[in-house]
Amino acid sequence: MYAAMGALGLAPDDQQKDYTPPSRSDFALSGRGAGSVVILGAGIAGLAAAYELGKAGYDCTVLEARDRVGGRNLTLRGGDRLPELSGATQEARFGEGVYFNAGPARIAQWMVTLDYCRELGVPIELFVNDNSSAYVYNSGMKAPVRARTARADTYGYISELLAKATNAGALNRRLTAGDKNRLLHFLSEFGDIGRTYTYTGSERRGFSVNPGTGAGVPLGSPPPLSEVLGYGLGRSITFPFGYEMAMPMFQPVGGMDAIAAKLADAVGRDRIRTSVEVKKITNLPDGVEVEHTGGATKADFCIAALPPHVLARIPGNLDARVVAALRTPTPVSGGKIGLEYRRRWWETDERIYGGITETDLDIAHIWYPSYGFHGTRGLVVGYYNLDEDAEAYARLTHAERQRRALTQGKKIHGEKYRSELLSSVSIAWQRQPHIEGAWVAWPSYEGAFALLQRPAGRVYFAGDWLTHLIAWQAGALESARNVVTQLHQRAVKEG
Amino acid sequence: MYAAMGALGLAPDDQQKDYTPPSRSDFALSGRGAGSVVILGAGIAGLAAAYELGKAGYDCTVLEARDRVGGRNLTLRGGDRLPELSGATQEARFGEGVYFNAGPARIAQWMVTLDYCRELGVPIELFVNDNSSAYVYNSGMKAPVRARTARADTYGYISELLAKATNAGALNRRLTAGDKNRLLHFLSEFGDIGRTYTYTGSERRGFSVNPGTGAGVPLGSPPPLSEVLGYGLGRSITFPFGYEMAMPMFQPVGGMDAIAAKLADAVGRDRIRTSVEVKKITNLPDGVEVEHTGGATKADFCIAALPPHVLARIPGNLDARVVAALRTPTPVSGGKIGLEYRRRWWETDERIYGGITETDLDIAHIWYPSYGFHGTRGLVVGYYNLDEDAEAYARLTHAERQRRALTQGKKIHGEKYRSELLSSVSIAWQRQPHIEGAWVAWPSYEGAFALLQRPAGRVYFAGDWLTHLIAWQAGALESARNVVTQLHQRAVKEG
Repeated sequence: MYAAMGALGLAPDDQQKDYTPPSRSDFALSGRGAGSVVILGAGIAGLAAAYELGKAGYDCTVLEARDRVGGRNLTLRGGDRLPELSGATQEARFGEGVYFNAGPARIAQWMVTLDYCRELGVPIELFVNDNSSAYVYNSGMKAPVRARTARADTYGYISELLAKATNAGALNRRLTAGDKNRLLHFLSEFGDIGRTYTYTGSERRGFSVNPGTGAGVPLGSPPPLSEVLGYGLGRSITFPFGYEMAMPMFQPVGGMDAIAAKLADAVGRDRIRTSVEVKKITNLPDGVEVEHTGGATKADFCIAALPPHVLARIPGNLDARVVAALRTPTPVSGGKIGLEYRRRWWETDERIYGGITETDLDIAHIWYPSYGFHGTRGLVVGYYNLDEDAEAYARLTHAERQRRALTQGKKIHGEKYRSELLSSVSIAWQRQPHIEGAWVAWPSYEGAFALLQRPAGRVYFAGDWLTHLIAWQAGALESARNVVTQLHQRAVKEG
Repeated sequence: MYAAMGALGLAPDDQQKDYTPPSRSDFALSGRGAGSVVILGAGIAGLAAAYELGKAGYDCTVLEARDRVGGRNLTLRGGDRLPELSGATQEARFGEGVYFNAGPARIAQWMVTLDYCRELGVPIELFVNDNSSAYVYNSGMKAPVRARTARADTYGYISELLAKATNAGALNRRLTAGDKNRLLHFLSEFGDIGRTYTYTGSERRGFSVNPGTGAGVPLGSPPPLSEVLGYGLGRSITFPFGYEMAMPMFQPVGGMDAIAAKLADAVGRDRIRTSVEVKKITNLPDGVEVEHTGGATKADFCIAALPPHVLARIPGNLDARVVAALRTPTPVSGGKIGLEYRRRWWETDERIYGGITETDLDIAHIWYPSYGFHGTRGLVVGYYNLDEDAEAYARLTHAERQRRALTQGKKIHGEKYRSELLSSVSIAWQRQPHIEGAWVAWPSYEGAFALLQRPAGRVYFAGDWLTHLIAWQAGALESARNVVTQLHQRAVKEG
């Protein structure tokens, strides 16, 4: 059998020349797979595993407990229903063309997610993760301040302080004379403080009357240093410096679920059974048997691409150490509300085109849409919060969540934040059936995490939760690639 | 007559309630205009003036010396011909869907240009003006460095230096104890230097192997402080802090000339005469006569929306002080080259999706396209330079410009920068017929500038060159609004 597979190009790398090892942007399992695989969960990890195995010729079946594919890759549109574990069900009433990415909503340039978009023909567009015209609003501030203004003031004062310390000789032991000159030159540009090395404001703060035929009226003088330091803007200023968050970022045109939809199409919709709940997973000597609400499915291998805390509750004969490992990561609570407005006041009235207002309120962030610019309606994400804040909102009815989100957002945008609202939908991920969390947190990347990277008998595990890209679709995709590579190499060897 | 116009709603603000003064996003001349206006130049200023006057009922004729509308709003596509004053003519050979914005290419959120896009139905999309994955490359550097890496190192060291000076007491007279704590807290986040206040690198620098199922391999340790200061990155780091340059920025879908095209459609193509060169401008007691290569046009008023240095050469009876004023600003040389590649290697090989690499080479910048992501071909702007650099390239033949641009870009991107090239087009704005400059520079905003804000007899002047938004289409639009408001108020009074 092995010899036959080798002849067909199925043998792994070290035995067969035409096996192509996975690469970041050009993944392929070389040759034809001969086995069957049952995949639990039609989230991004499950779909990608089925897609890659399908390309290699495996006979895949995907079982999904929810009534649609995608898992947390969830885009809500008018008419969509969203049940919660509490029993409450919302129905989205958004207008034509308005959508709400209730789960993942942004993709970094370096992430493998973009490779799948390219490969699957999912058109992408830019996503604004950081907007100089959006606001920062922390409890230390009297009123919301535009991000550009807060940054200009912060960089101005930092530059002034460092220039003065440098000129006073405080860094003589650290800096050569040449270094000092270069540093001072840099600071004069970085803080826009000129050669006086004193920050007195900058046109970078913005204008109350824009330049035109006249010179414009720059915003007034900056607040005192002490007030700017009191803003507490470390996170607001630095989050887009992160490798995962740096601009530019991307989104699929028309909604994040285009990725799930194109993956499902590529897998074959006939191979995916939705509204089928897994009841038991049994490792057998020569395969795996999965009992579910639609009957039972037997396959050579199983890939369990469910959240670990959900998977841990499913009966079967998985080793107790494996089950304990699945129980190790802690689900993280997370929530969002999509607020549909009758007009795009953030664009017309406030000149904010996409991006995020950062707050220390319980709503955490307000996201302005990166699509539909200049259109009629638009959808603002009124909160995207985690942990205690997400739990506090989750305990409320949807109407109460909306009321609370509007009360908070009104502090930044005024009465129109309430009066222009058309409809809304809120999600509490920890209350989503069969998902029960926004993502998970591991106490460490040793032990349980490492154990689950390997199969338990003929059951493999996949998901963003098994990567260092938790909460990102890229994690689900990288995990799927890892697992199908392991499975394929074993299938070829066992063949 | 005046009473009749008042009854028709044509009287200005102080005399008639229903006159709507211009506002930034909702400009209108209230009531019907009764006069005729000849407009010289179908650039953005001329078109916008004709559009606004046309809405108010004026009978406008636009004379354009070039064979197309738009002026410097110029998008080149396959088949387009580009003559230069030198006599050389290029023909663009770009493939389907590839375009080159040879003139303006980006719009800030606050600019009136976006209002015209909304009003005219020009769809807009995001433009990447700043990309963490693009490079910075100055002669002080051994090799190109990703912007994210250069910034992480710069911010890391700055934070370390300022934290150390603060902890050493160097700023005790400037900072309270509370300020010091808040500053140190900020610096630990800003520089990612933790509580040791020592910069030893950061994941913000990037990864040589991205995180996935493994933790990834961060880029190595940062270069020493002295080397980072030697990069001379002030401008590269700070240009997106500017009010005009801050992210996000925008572009029309499909090419900047969509703005000119929609304006021209709204004006009425039959009112615009292209390839008609103005030969003489004569102020008459009751109007203006314009002689041109297509005959002569008489109107109640004239709006001269040509570059001032071109306008100054046209004979007529403009006052000598006006002509001297038109000669006051200096044309600025500027050039660009559009390099069409057979594949989008910057996306696939280097994970750069849009944005700009900043250099101190004579090419100044390399722009990656913010459209056509994941497509087959793509167009990179291989230089966008000014002054001496632009003049040096302008003196070359197109083939020589291309060769020089490729030699420079190869220093950053390697051999593929040359080998993957399909075709190119270069523009030297100072050599463009009837334009003769990228834009102008004023010695001051007094005197000549102020004089030309007012009409010379019945001739009004319009263009970005009469604003504090020189080189921006927003300047042309603001100038047009200013001039048509003046003209309308006078027409109503004279009526």
